[in-house]
Amino acid sequence: MLPVIDFIHTNRDRYIHELKTLLAIPSISALPEHAGDVKRCAEWVADEMRRVGLEHVRLIDTPGNPVVYGDWLHAGPDVPTILFYGHYDVQPVDPVNLWESPPFEATVRDGEIYARGAADDKGQVFMHLKAIEAHMKQTGKLPVNMRVILEGEEEVGSVNLDNFVRANKADLASDVVVISDSAMFDRGVPSICYGLRGLVYFQIDLRGTKSDLHSGVFGGAVANPNFVLAQILAQMKDRGGRIKIPGFYDDVRDLTEAERAEWAKLPFNDKQYRKSLGAPKLTGESGYTTLERVWGRPTFEVNGLLGGFTGEGAKTVIPAVSMAKVSMRLVPDQHPDKIAALFDAYVKKVAPKTVEVTVTRMHGGKPWMADFDNVYVRAAGRAIEQGFGKAPVFCREGGSIPVVSTFQEELGVPSVLFGVGLPDENAHAPNEKLDLSNFHNGIVASAILYDEIAKTKRDGA
Amino acid sequence: MLPVIDFIHTNRDRYIHELKTLLAIPSISALPEHAGDVKRCAEWVADEMRRVGLEHVRLIDTPGNPVVYGDWLHAGPDVPTILFYGHYDVQPVDPVNLWESPPFEATVRDGEIYARGAADDKGQVFMHLKAIEAHMKQTGKLPVNMRVILEGEEEVGSVNLDNFVRANKADLASDVVVISDSAMFDRGVPSICYGLRGLVYFQIDLRGTKSDLHSGVFGGAVANPNFVLAQILAQMKDRGGRIKIPGFYDDVRDLTEAERAEWAKLPFNDKQYRKSLGAPKLTGESGYTTLERVWGRPTFEVNGLLGGFTGEGAKTVIPAVSMAKVSMRLVPDQHPDKIAALFDAYVKKVAPKTVEVTVTRMHGGKPWMADFDNVYVRAAGRAIEQGFGKAPVFCREGGSIPVVSTFQEELGVPSVLFGVGLPDENAHAPNEKLDLSNFHNGIVASAILYDEIAKTKRDGA
Repeated sequence: MLPVIDFIHTNRDRYIHELKTLLAIPSISALPEHAGDVKRCAEWVADEMRRVGLEHVRLIDTPGNPVVYGDWLHAGPDVPTILFYGHYDVQPVDPVNLWESPPFEATVRDGEIYARGAADDKGQVFMHLKAIEAHMKQTGKLPVNMRVILEGEEEVGSVNLDNFVRANKADLASDVVVISDSAMFDRGVPSICYGLRGLVYFQIDLRGTKSDLHSGVFGGAVANPNFVLAQILAQMKDRGGRIKIPGFYDDVRDLTEAERAEWAKLPFNDKQYRKSLGAPKLTGESGYTTLERVWGRPTFEVNGLLGGFTGEGAKTVIPAVSMAKVSMRLVPDQHPDKIAALFDAYVKKVAPKTVEVTVTRMHGGKPWMADFDNVYVRAAGRAIEQGFGKAPVFCREGGSIPVVSTFQEELGVPSVLFGVGLPDENAHAPNEKLDLSNFHNGIVASAILYDEIAKTKRDGA
Repeated sequence: MLPVIDFIHTNRDRYIHELKTLLAIPSISALPEHAGDVKRCAEWVADEMRRVGLEHVRLIDTPGNPVVYGDWLHAGPDVPTILFYGHYDVQPVDPVNLWESPPFEATVRDGEIYARGAADDKGQVFMHLKAIEAHMKQTGKLPVNMRVILEGEEEVGSVNLDNFVRANKADLASDVVVISDSAMFDRGVPSICYGLRGLVYFQIDLRGTKSDLHSGVFGGAVANPNFVLAQILAQMKDRGGRIKIPGFYDDVRDLTEAERAEWAKLPFNDKQYRKSLGAPKLTGESGYTTLERVWGRPTFEVNGLLGGFTGEGAKTVIPAVSMAKVSMRLVPDQHPDKIAALFDAYVKKVAPKTVEVTVTRMHGGKPWMADFDNVYVRAAGRAIEQGFGKAPVFCREGGSIPVVSTFQEELGVPSVLFGVGLPDENAHAPNEKLDLSNFHNGIVASAILYDEIAKTKRDGA
């Protein structure tokens, strides 16, 4: 392994330079006007996959954005096959005025690279491509069989990936899925993630009248969709932070005492956390700690609100329409389809007859939780310890990577979630960044991970 | 009077042509980027005032937009002086995509002229300027002494007019104020308005964290400003539509049985009203009819809502900030300052400690109610009957013209509110319009009104 690791250390600056090129492509999958950029990004990563030595590289069409595929399958039948999954699309950048440097001109400040996609997920995808490159350039081969798929719709809920996986089972045949699309527990605390929350996302549209009305002339006689929206949303949670949708908690798996005890040992401080977020006060579901609230309990969030006059100054209008984007994070064993039906029924029950209500389901994914005692998780633990000089802790994540459930169900393959982001890296916010030493150690750890996974069969580990 | 009326009939087409020029100026006082247009509009109306024969025409500076002043004071000391008040600024036009023709290219369709400001208030101001012109061109004089003031900040709450009136009492000395900035009760039902609601308007800003957060990573541990905003707003009214701010109703003057009986006789139909608005169902404060709700009872409205991701698609964000624009219509004897203090205290009481709350008062005005048995109201009644061929009904209006209270308090002068708009003319909404036969009959009635007001002293009426 030493020549491979040496190669990585030697090429540190080049990696950053190349990563900047990838980060310059505004591949925002949520915004139709960036469709061309998304396509261009797919082509860029395909070219890069060819450059690092992968074979059969191609763009596979879906009804949405293409999946980029490549493989290297010459390690022999006795060695496991890794399916590496990542995504080349990114989140929108608004409010763009809050960015300290342009979101698509990657800028290095204080050892961190700032750009949309730096952490989520281009930087972490690139880390693996560079680990593959290091093996190929130094040894002409990989220690494992490798398949890589990079999708372009993760930030819009991986809407076409389930079908893609189902339709391409043979091409995706593998022993373990490796994903680097999550964060470490904290700076200096490398970690392996064994659980993710699921997601259901909706848009609620209300219409009160056929056009906007003067609030003096008509105020008092008709429903105001902005106010009705507030009434509906306020009925989603009680004062204790508990979600009021009937049946919502029916399938929630309780946290075990053992798990709660493990999490309580992690280096976490409420006050520091609160300060780092700039929040006046933490809050959440009664009876749970902060980590339990974000890792192990479901949520209801209002992601967007829009209605009426929102410019500078004052306009005395009763808007005709009002809109909210809302989402719920789910935990095992909640099912997005069931929660979606409960939500839809509840909105319609609490909405008054004075407005027309439309509930549109946008996307979602199942929650996921792994058995963290499998050989691949242990292999990842050894690789991380070598790459970062420290054994990883085991934690869950509040975010969602819906495809993890899909891989488990469709391919019958476990996933190893090995993320090198940090919790304060603004993944979906302005000034997204990635710590460059974590990026570099991540390349080393990834290169070692392939070796450690190769050993699992060779050693019968 | 006949030559004056003939002149008006002969010039009907020219009036529309000239009005289009005035309506072409986007004098939106709420939007700083239109400051130049507001100024240009002031100069245009000043020129027009000179053209129709007014004297001493000038722009009088205020800390905001100028007031345009002109007079004609040669009718003699035995004849009353009218102070005509109107405004040359207009409302914003968003959402501009809902306009069927461009808001600043006045378009005539089916006997109505469509443009921002057509009814509110440029069309009605122009009606009086043309009535003045008709007298001056045909007789070389006016039957009354006349002062005209046109302000440029009515749509942003007449923020500088109170001081202007106080500072210019001598130049505004008059016997009666005439205002045409309101609507008739209905098409074919000319009316005189004897009451207006007041207004207080606020912006509420919430901040939860220093930047937007990923709703997966942080969801469950921090307050979501969008949700907290919904909770705060939902606590403003109870299920019966009654405002829950403590003390809010303390100074509300009850409707008299006599007034309720008069209103009940007016040609008004809930079903037709509901249909014309395209509302699924009417609603409002329990125990009151629709007219009582909009004319005689206070309201709470959410005029604007904004927070988080509001574009197409989905973004899983917990916004750092959230904003609402809210306003309350007030009735006699509520005072905007007192209500503002009650509102501010209530918001701060119901807001949780998990967010920073800022309440900014934007503008407002006192409610107003006239004694409708004075000589000027009766003179207006006769003028309207001649101009429209039908005696007017007496009604209140749900909107606010804050300056009416100012004139009463500062100048000790009653106001006559003679509006020729219609309730469905979209005063603050897309596709604002003015019925051209009401515009024309309004010019006739205005010309006659000056004569009728002249007679009040001559006849001792």
